[in-house]
Amino acid sequence: MKRVALEVAYDGTDYCGWQIQKNAKTVEYVLTEALRRLLQEDVELTGASRTDSGVHAMGNIAVFDTETQIPPDRMSMAVNRYLPEDIRVMRSWETAPDFHPRHCVSRKTYEYTIMNTSIPLPVLRRYTYHVYGALDVAAMEQAAGILVGTHDFSAFCSAGSQVKSKVRTIYELNIKERYVWPAAPSMGTDGRLLGICVSGNGFLYNMVRILAGTLIEVGLSRRSLDSVAEALAGGRRELAGPTAPAAGLTLCSICFEQGGDG
Amino acid sequence: MKRVALEVAYDGTDYCGWQIQKNAKTVEYVLTEALRRLLQEDVELTGASRTDSGVHAMGNIAVFDTETQIPPDRMSMAVNRYLPEDIRVMRSWETAPDFHPRHCVSRKTYEYTIMNTSIPLPVLRRYTYHVYGALDVAAMEQAAGILVGTHDFSAFCSAGSQVKSKVRTIYELNIKERYVWPAAPSMGTDGRLLGICVSGNGFLYNMVRILAGTLIEVGLSRRSLDSVAEALAGGRRELAGPTAPAAGLTLCSICFEQGGDG
Repeated sequence: MKRVALEVAYDGTDYCGWQIQKNAKTVEYVLTEALRRLLQEDVELTGASRTDSGVHAMGNIAVFDTETQIPPDRMSMAVNRYLPEDIRVMRSWETAPDFHPRHCVSRKTYEYTIMNTSIPLPVLRRYTYHVYGALDVAAMEQAAGILVGTHDFSAFCSAGSQVKSKVRTIYELNIKERYVWPAAPSMGTDGRLLGICVSGNGFLYNMVRILAGTLIEVGLSRRSLDSVAEALAGGRRELAGPTAPAAGLTLCSICFEQGGDG
Repeated sequence: MKRVALEVAYDGTDYCGWQIQKNAKTVEYVLTEALRRLLQEDVELTGASRTDSGVHAMGNIAVFDTETQIPPDRMSMAVNRYLPEDIRVMRSWETAPDFHPRHCVSRKTYEYTIMNTSIPLPVLRRYTYHVYGALDVAAMEQAAGILVGTHDFSAFCSAGSQVKSKVRTIYELNIKERYVWPAAPSMGTDGRLLGICVSGNGFLYNMVRILAGTLIEVGLSRRSLDSVAEALAGGRRELAGPTAPAAGLTLCSICFEQGGDG
């Protein structure tokens, strides 16, 4: 018996998120079924991040135990033959037998991508959130500075979360200009693509989308910097901005302090 | 009566190309119907580039004549309300009444995007062609240098073309590194995104896709530089490489020498 880790990328558009649930197509379900067909074993996956419906991933991590003779680093290529093209295992490797991706200290990086144009470009619509009206990036960066660090993020957590502590640490929170390929004549003159890039030791339910919704309000001059600090201090959900739509969110990568890295 | 030009962007994945044809969903058909519903007039569109099935556009150009009172520059916003989200009119303006986008001298720019990785990233699958095996970009650039200029491109034209002359001018043909946003852990270490960017005064049937297929063969060391020169000189289709898949191709922009620019 060995424990194998998978780095999983997916286009979340057509999935009801990661976690298995009744009567819904989820990434965890489709990946579990593919592994069962490949290995002819019962497989139980444990994912590092249970992404929401419509959220994308470049590198979510999942582990499972197996008796198979397939070498761990060949598992990615092998299982991809059983997967639809909107899910791909990018890498696979053997981990310590007691490695658990949700119980280990990790650094998660997400990007929330904003198409800040008059008219949304069709090829970006599945992976970005369209915001009409030029965003003040300097103001968004100032607001981001308030949110970096270790805080109680209760105001940035949707109802329904069961966690005991809402204290989390944001290591980095930056607004980066992103480039569309191929170049569109309207980009640059009429608008731009912006990424809200955030790394932290963990995120509450909907936290990145609420951070994005709050920073977008700041960028549109609908919210002051003071109100961001007040939301953080006050801890009530209604003090922060709206939950930005799922399509703009991508889980980029997860790094583990020990035990999980390939 | 005035003539209005539209800059049209679309995700070509779910369309049988631009041109109206029986029993097929095409961009021209869907856009014509949207204009008819908006204007309550009979509308006949003339497109600058009749892109193939599955090909994308950031800025195709189309013109039509109308009696409407809607100001030409407001037409884009107005018609977008009648369009599905995979087609958007990015800009609109009034042109000279005799401007015809296929009879005017123009410079067209296309990009053929290659995902050169071991395993294809799901979020790029609709807009790129996945090539396994590292591409030798320096060799591709040398081959591109042979193709730039005014030549008879008969070897780079699929059967079925009705044009008299197959002489065309390629102004620029470059291989550019493109960046995925958000960053994927596998990109950079395990692969990269490459764009074959080509500008010319016109392109034959499937010409950009055959140029891409030929350059990819060079990049994979399956074709010599001499054989590229021989294809150009020999003029027979079988001397050039395969027609690369439609999904990787995007029409970026069209500039007119006179009469059409907004």
